[in-house]
Amino acid sequence: MQTLILVAHPEIDNSPTQQFLQASLPQSAVNDDQLIWHDLTAAFAKNGWSRETELTLLEQADRIIWQFPLYWYSAPAILKQWQEAIFTGEVSQYEFLAGKELGLVVSLGEKLASYQAGAREQFTLSEILRPYQAFAQKLGWRYLAPLMIEQFSYLTDSAKQKLLVDYQQYLTLKQPASFAQRGQWLLAQLQQIASVDSTTKSTLALAQEQLADQLADYQDLQTQLQEIRRGEHD
Amino acid sequence: MQTLILVAHPEIDNSPTQQFLQASLPQSAVNDDQLIWHDLTAAFAKNGWSRETELTLLEQADRIIWQFPLYWYSAPAILKQWQEAIFTGEVSQYEFLAGKELGLVVSLGEKLASYQAGAREQFTLSEILRPYQAFAQKLGWRYLAPLMIEQFSYLTDSAKQKLLVDYQQYLTLKQPASFAQRGQWLLAQLQQIASVDSTTKSTLALAQEQLADQLADYQDLQTQLQEIRRGEHD
Repeated sequence: MQTLILVAHPEIDNSPTQQFLQASLPQSAVNDDQLIWHDLTAAFAKNGWSRETELTLLEQADRIIWQFPLYWYSAPAILKQWQEAIFTGEVSQYEFLAGKELGLVVSLGEKLASYQAGAREQFTLSEILRPYQAFAQKLGWRYLAPLMIEQFSYLTDSAKQKLLVDYQQYLTLKQPASFAQRGQWLLAQLQQIASVDSTTKSTLALAQEQLADQLADYQDLQTQLQEIRRGEHD
Repeated sequence: MQTLILVAHPEIDNSPTQQFLQASLPQSAVNDDQLIWHDLTAAFAKNGWSRETELTLLEQADRIIWQFPLYWYSAPAILKQWQEAIFTGEVSQYEFLAGKELGLVVSLGEKLASYQAGAREQFTLSEILRPYQAFAQKLGWRYLAPLMIEQFSYLTDSAKQKLLVDYQQYLTLKQPASFAQRGQWLLAQLQQIASVDSTTKSTLALAQEQLADQLADYQDLQTQLQEIRRGEHD
């Protein structure tokens, strides 16, 4: 699966969030072109965008990510400029892109809890991001539940680690990912780690074992639960 | 009352809708600076926007209109560029603008009826325009019900005349305007017409009389209805 990450930020180099996300990309997937990082501001600064190049990038991708900070309740203007420059004319021209997935990775200066009726922002993020959902709907793309990053600069180290995992999974896993799928993904990640010293290696091996056991237990529990439920409905 | 019309369109000169709206402005109100037409694209093309000038324009206005065609479920990118250029930094800086009114004049390529669950566009315009409502809410501005212009190029002459009246009222009347207020506004417009030939003049006089009579009747009916309702609830 190929995921194209379109980053819409006026100054990526000065954004700790974007720097963190870029550093979070698994390098092997980047080398294999399974993940493509595409900085819209930098691409525009060169020679403007080439519509043909952009459409080819979109065509090759299975999942398209729009990644941006929320400025005045939408992406920075550069994303809209890109949309208007690439998606010109009749919608029917873009039928060859039908079936893509559209994911949003949105960083917020406010807390998530502010986005509800009665709170500071009054409206939910599902409402605020509706124009992007409508775009996906219009093009026959599947709209994925967005990944929200709230107040990155206040995140603890462990919250950042969790974000790294969530972000990698959002880019690469089937969405929505079940609890078991996320666990298996984590297990696969642990198995890939090889080039470390022997102490770390044995700690990792233990963590792997435990995780595998837990996943097996979890699946047993799921099966039992289904049996019980089946009984209830008889 | 002063109304500032911020027009966000990449090519106003090639837009029949924007040309029509500009020609619809009552010249006397433009001359008195009660209506200010501000083309964001043209202003930017000169020397970029001056933040100070824009903020002064906003401060002087009672009602601010964002006027634009709906491109991919939001205003053309130029409006977002302007928002990001003018409203930088902390929101608290803009407290001096609290209490303004924000109106939207939105032209649509689709029919209004397309904007509902199950129809072509799936989402209502209230949902799609939520980011603008959220902006108004954040700045303590009163959000007016938008004026929608559907498929301008298919409008009949009489529909265009109705649009002209609706637009002038949207710019100048207290919103929401009651049926009686709209009638009185129309009456005032008729009374202002003076420099016409005598046949037209007598036709206008008749129209005025009839309109004034109808308004009086309407107000009588309203009063009677209120009496009846009062009785019902006793």
